[in-house]
Amino acid sequence: MVVSYQGEPGAYSEQAALEFFGSSCSPKGRTSFDDVFSDVSSGAAEFGVVPVENTLGGSIHRNYDLLMRHDLHVVGEIIVPIRWYLYALPGVTMADITLVMSHWQTLAQCEQTLARLLPKIATKDVYDNAGAVKMVVEQNMLQTAAIAGARAKDIYHVPILRENLEDDRGNYTRFVVLSRETETEPTLRQAEGQRFKSSMVFALNNIPGSLHRAMAAFALRDIDLCKIESRPLAGSPWEYLFYVDVVGHKDDEVMARALAHLQEYTTIFRLFGSFPRAALPQ
Amino acid sequence: MVVSYQGEPGAYSEQAALEFFGSSCSPKGRTSFDDVFSDVSSGAAEFGVVPVENTLGGSIHRNYDLLMRHDLHVVGEIIVPIRWYLYALPGVTMADITLVMSHWQTLAQCEQTLARLLPKIATKDVYDNAGAVKMVVEQNMLQTAAIAGARAKDIYHVPILRENLEDDRGNYTRFVVLSRETETEPTLRQAEGQRFKSSMVFALNNIPGSLHRAMAAFALRDIDLCKIESRPLAGSPWEYLFYVDVVGHKDDEVMARALAHLQEYTTIFRLFGSFPRAALPQ
Repeated sequence: MVVSYQGEPGAYSEQAALEFFGSSCSPKGRTSFDDVFSDVSSGAAEFGVVPVENTLGGSIHRNYDLLMRHDLHVVGEIIVPIRWYLYALPGVTMADITLVMSHWQTLAQCEQTLARLLPKIATKDVYDNAGAVKMVVEQNMLQTAAIAGARAKDIYHVPILRENLEDDRGNYTRFVVLSRETETEPTLRQAEGQRFKSSMVFALNNIPGSLHRAMAAFALRDIDLCKIESRPLAGSPWEYLFYVDVVGHKDDEVMARALAHLQEYTTIFRLFGSFPRAALPQ
Repeated sequence: MVVSYQGEPGAYSEQAALEFFGSSCSPKGRTSFDDVFSDVSSGAAEFGVVPVENTLGGSIHRNYDLLMRHDLHVVGEIIVPIRWYLYALPGVTMADITLVMSHWQTLAQCEQTLARLLPKIATKDVYDNAGAVKMVVEQNMLQTAAIAGARAKDIYHVPILRENLEDDRGNYTRFVVLSRETETEPTLRQAEGQRFKSSMVFALNNIPGSLHRAMAAFALRDIDLCKIESRPLAGSPWEYLFYVDVVGHKDDEVMARALAHLQEYTTIFRLFGSFPRAALPQ
């Protein structure tokens, strides 16, 4: 079972794929999120795993936009605790380092710790943080450190110079699982005893009170809203698409009524799927 | 009057500052958005001008987070139409170009046009697009082009190789004007005959229906919601801050009642300010 993700081996997206599907799946690292969506759409991969939200950095908007652009289903979610480590070649000390490389979101999550450990250090934004460790090794960089997750240690055989680089321990990333099918065996297996969540996107007429009215479809039925994200509606300046997650399955009677009610107001509506709600890791 | 902005001379942020304050102000280009907020907080600049939203790329979340972190007021807004131009040194033709440099948001806004004009061209993400033109000139780059706004032509004396690189003509950026004071002379001058807008941030108890109830404060009074943006609440995973813009001045009777009503539900509330609503440029 091929599962496409963005990044190099050792990236948290790969870990999310392995945790969701088990170690018998074949994770396939890709350069961009676009590649992951294309893999699943074309059938080159059975599933894709992409991050949609981090508790410190916020939403990964590119993946919301790609959900809209591709005709795929969300069939699962997984929450991974994020810890960051500083890697440098053997023998390199903190005093040697003049540059720290990582993905910009990772650098942002370590901003204050980095400022304390290495005041006024130069930083460089690269496309992937496991990839940053790989560069340090392959290019034998003796004055550069990279920030990445714990798995980079085993994959690139580089020592960890400092642990716990994240500014806040409440650092979790939520990933969604993409599929061409609405119901999949790995998802159903996880569903036992779990509550469900439904994920959708909609647009509304731009009139006063329209969002309040739309959300009444859920609020009047005591359906819990987990998340609302607004993104620009292409071709209509200052109008928005709303990406919404609510607790419940689309086939529950109350939810089915809520979704029908909501669609009385929407100009665009698409349900991405209903899937077992991920537990917060201990 | 010193007005701090992020970027090199020729950046759209500088243009926004000049359009809002007139050509007698002194725009001061800074490396980061953090520097702009710090300039205004410390008094090194009287005002700051930062982008908060683009109609294609969406919100610039860093500036929402910085609004929360600093104790500044929003005293104005300005909308600038964004057009992108391809710059290269004299004599360089399309066939010579192997690399195109610009800010990642600019590259994203020109993605399809660039793929058509220069298929499979390499791109490089730099911190500022006017800065990319400056690099082409200073380093005499004969195989590299840069994408920037129209003003770069006059500042760096580089020819425009292609116009209209943006994928969508409905490309506008909305900037806000930051000040330590709530009411400022340049803002009040612009206010004549204008409608007002109020900008705020709040958090709510995480219970079903809480956002719907909060928005009732505006909806029940026919107050138009312009924009809602959610950002993670630091230290509380899966809880959010809501940044909201509504039409009306905080001192209007109906708005004052709506804001009082809203605060019956909020756990965090801060009004950034009321300011004249920007007109969409023709």
